[in-house]
Amino acid sequence: MSHNETKPFDYIIHNANITTLSPQYSDDENPYGIIRNGAIGVNGNVIAYIGAFDEELKAQKTIDAQGQWLTPGLIDCHTHLVYGGNRANEFEMRLNGVAYEEIAKAGGGIISSVKATREASEDELFASAAKRLKSFLAEGVTTIEIKSGYGLDTENEIKMLKVAKRLEKEFPVRVSSTFLGAHALPPEYKDDADGYIDLVCEEMIPQVAALGLADCVDAFCENIGFTYQQTERVFQAAHKHGLKVKLHAEQLSDQSGAGLAADYKALSADHLEYLSQESIEKMAQSGTVAVLLPGAYYFLRETKLPPLDELRKAGVPIAVASDSNPGTSPAQSLLLMLNMACTLFRMTPLEALQGVTINAAKALGIEEQVGTIEIGKKAELALWDIEHPNQLSYQLGGNNLTKVLR
Amino acid sequence: MSHNETKPFDYIIHNANITTLSPQYSDDENPYGIIRNGAIGVNGNVIAYIGAFDEELKAQKTIDAQGQWLTPGLIDCHTHLVYGGNRANEFEMRLNGVAYEEIAKAGGGIISSVKATREASEDELFASAAKRLKSFLAEGVTTIEIKSGYGLDTENEIKMLKVAKRLEKEFPVRVSSTFLGAHALPPEYKDDADGYIDLVCEEMIPQVAALGLADCVDAFCENIGFTYQQTERVFQAAHKHGLKVKLHAEQLSDQSGAGLAADYKALSADHLEYLSQESIEKMAQSGTVAVLLPGAYYFLRETKLPPLDELRKAGVPIAVASDSNPGTSPAQSLLLMLNMACTLFRMTPLEALQGVTINAAKALGIEEQVGTIEIGKKAELALWDIEHPNQLSYQLGGNNLTKVLR
Ligand SMILES: [Zn+2]
Ligand SMILES: [Zn+2]
Repeated sequence: MSHNETKPFDYIIHNANITTLSPQYSDDENPYGIIRNGAIGVNGNVIAYIGAFDEELKAQKTIDAQGQWLTPGLIDCHTHLVYGGNRANEFEMRLNGVAYEEIAKAGGGIISSVKATREASEDELFASAAKRLKSFLAEGVTTIEIKSGYGLDTENEIKMLKVAKRLEKEFPVRVSSTFLGAHALPPEYKDDADGYIDLVCEEMIPQVAALGLADCVDAFCENIGFTYQQTERVFQAAHKHGLKVKLHAEQLSDQSGAGLAADYKALSADHLEYLSQESIEKMAQSGTVAVLLPGAYYFLRETKLPPLDELRKAGVPIAVASDSNPGTSPAQSLLLMLNMACTLFRMTPLEALQGVTINAAKALGIEEQVGTIEIGKKAELALWDIEHPNQLSYQLGGNNLTKVLR
Repeated sequence: MSHNETKPFDYIIHNANITTLSPQYSDDENPYGIIRNGAIGVNGNVIAYIGAFDEELKAQKTIDAQGQWLTPGLIDCHTHLVYGGNRANEFEMRLNGVAYEEIAKAGGGIISSVKATREASEDELFASAAKRLKSFLAEGVTTIEIKSGYGLDTENEIKMLKVAKRLEKEFPVRVSSTFLGAHALPPEYKDDADGYIDLVCEEMIPQVAALGLADCVDAFCENIGFTYQQTERVFQAAHKHGLKVKLHAEQLSDQSGAGLAADYKALSADHLEYLSQESIEKMAQSGTVAVLLPGAYYFLRETKLPPLDELRKAGVPIAVASDSNPGTSPAQSLLLMLNMACTLFRMTPLEALQGVTINAAKALGIEEQVGTIEIGKKAELALWDIEHPNQLSYQLGGNNLTKVLR
């Protein structure tokens, strides 16, 4: 906690209640690792000092937090933020009692998002995603994962990933981009899922990897998605091209997808309502993060809960994300997901906050850089006008963010 | 739709998709009463023209809505916005498995809010309520109802109502204030509920009425609240002092409270999960609005749904509100309530929007002034960057408000 006495910090923020979420500062009496009335010194974009404020600390700039609460910047580790159109009409039709088949016939469902995404220019996709991104940034999000998966052909998948990269360039946010070609079967490959997986593995993944457009490869392993075997082929192709994997698994049924993901050292397996004990144990061994998505659970009015207690017992790190997407979680608030994780899944406010910071960082493989407040980590911080960090989970709507430091 | 040709409007807003929600402009093909690419002329604070934009319309100021969507300003017709403290710690304790009795022993439950509210100065209550109010205003709310009910003695109930009046003075919002002395039994009257109702009827209501601090009187009729007979005494005292009534009814059990409310020509009966057919028919006859509160239903993880179909069939107007309060609905978003009304209660997006505009206005007895866009009504309007008003219900978080006209 000392620093180079000769060089002043770039800035100090003091008079802050620092919620470090770091084991270095936590114990049973202080599970959040809170340092009351503390100070942080930053050099470049790295945290160089954490501790008491001392008049002798020198800095080029000093920020008085006025007793507000500092947390790590929030991380949304599972979104489908980039897409054309929205599905509000479909939502309304369903509530007006129109049958599912009729909606599908009228062009509804995921294929309507594929169609709108293919039709949209890169600029149009950027503009609509930017609006949604601003909602997340306004709530202290400093890192967001964004998946492709509504293009479903090489050109349009690449178009989506380019939009994700451009969002990172034009907004103050770290974007982790994920190639999700195996999200759904495009109409051209109706009745030829294996043929589509050939395209994903032999054309899309090589091109996406060569262009450096994806940090990770994802798939949707489900009876309405791709099989265990098809998913494994996607993982093999990803590894062949040096990309890590993650998986949409066990949302609607148990396909052993999370266990497969663990076999391939996946960063995360996501959804997990139907997760088996066997897959939990594999995840614990491989260090695969369980990403829970309460927005989709809520929006689809699911009743089967993810096995939270079993995940806790096995020591699997648990993250929480928005799953922001037009069909099953039109969410533009990560704070709301904290409340839903607690209210619907019975996570504790501390678990929920860890789920959008350190465990979300683990789900993206960036936990060495962000996710807690520790010396040597990036100074990506959010300041809140609250009385305790549990208030972030307790509130239903509203936003007490006062500042983002980055 | 003509206007005085000699006098220019104070302002015109044009190039707007006007969602009137008015029967004057609605039909089966156009249930929202939408006027595409329309204009509104305003004189003073009153709508004087609705229709096509015509270059010959004269105004001192012209606002180009750029194709965005105009709706009536939103109305939250049921809140407990003013209170001391919050109950985030209690929320956290419960999720950490602490038993209810232990929380109660540690001073939890509604009595903790009463204690904090009594201890808070009027300025402190104003400051904390103002923060919450800003969240609602940022979402296009132009009218909000605020109840007392955490003072539970004459002095502190009056203090709360004064804060509500001061909020109206210092923010651009209409506040409808409701006296809810019969919200819970204060510790001083433990085992003497009738004695407390004496105080409510013989001291509080007369003073509140004399001071002009309340537009309405409310009570909590429930097995954990007040009985049918006690509620009736409150209604009689209210009527004696010229105040209209409304009621927290049938939230946890059927007490026939909504029927009683209808007998007293209540503006609304609120919650209503356990509402009987008999009470529905009485409400239909008396014109009493059904105010549904999906935030409390969600936060308490209730499973018994309000009888939506029966209310529809009987023609009871249905409103939707936040019930913003520290114990059972710590909500600071009315837009989120639109989504919850649809997702949890299966209301349609149109019903949900009517529920926070015209039907909310009816629940406050101000439907002649606000709640739809019609000539002669107040120009209290919200402008949204959306593709259709159904998007307001579809979205889960986020806020597309661009402007409030008032
Ligand atoms: Zn997803
Ligand atoms: Zn209430």
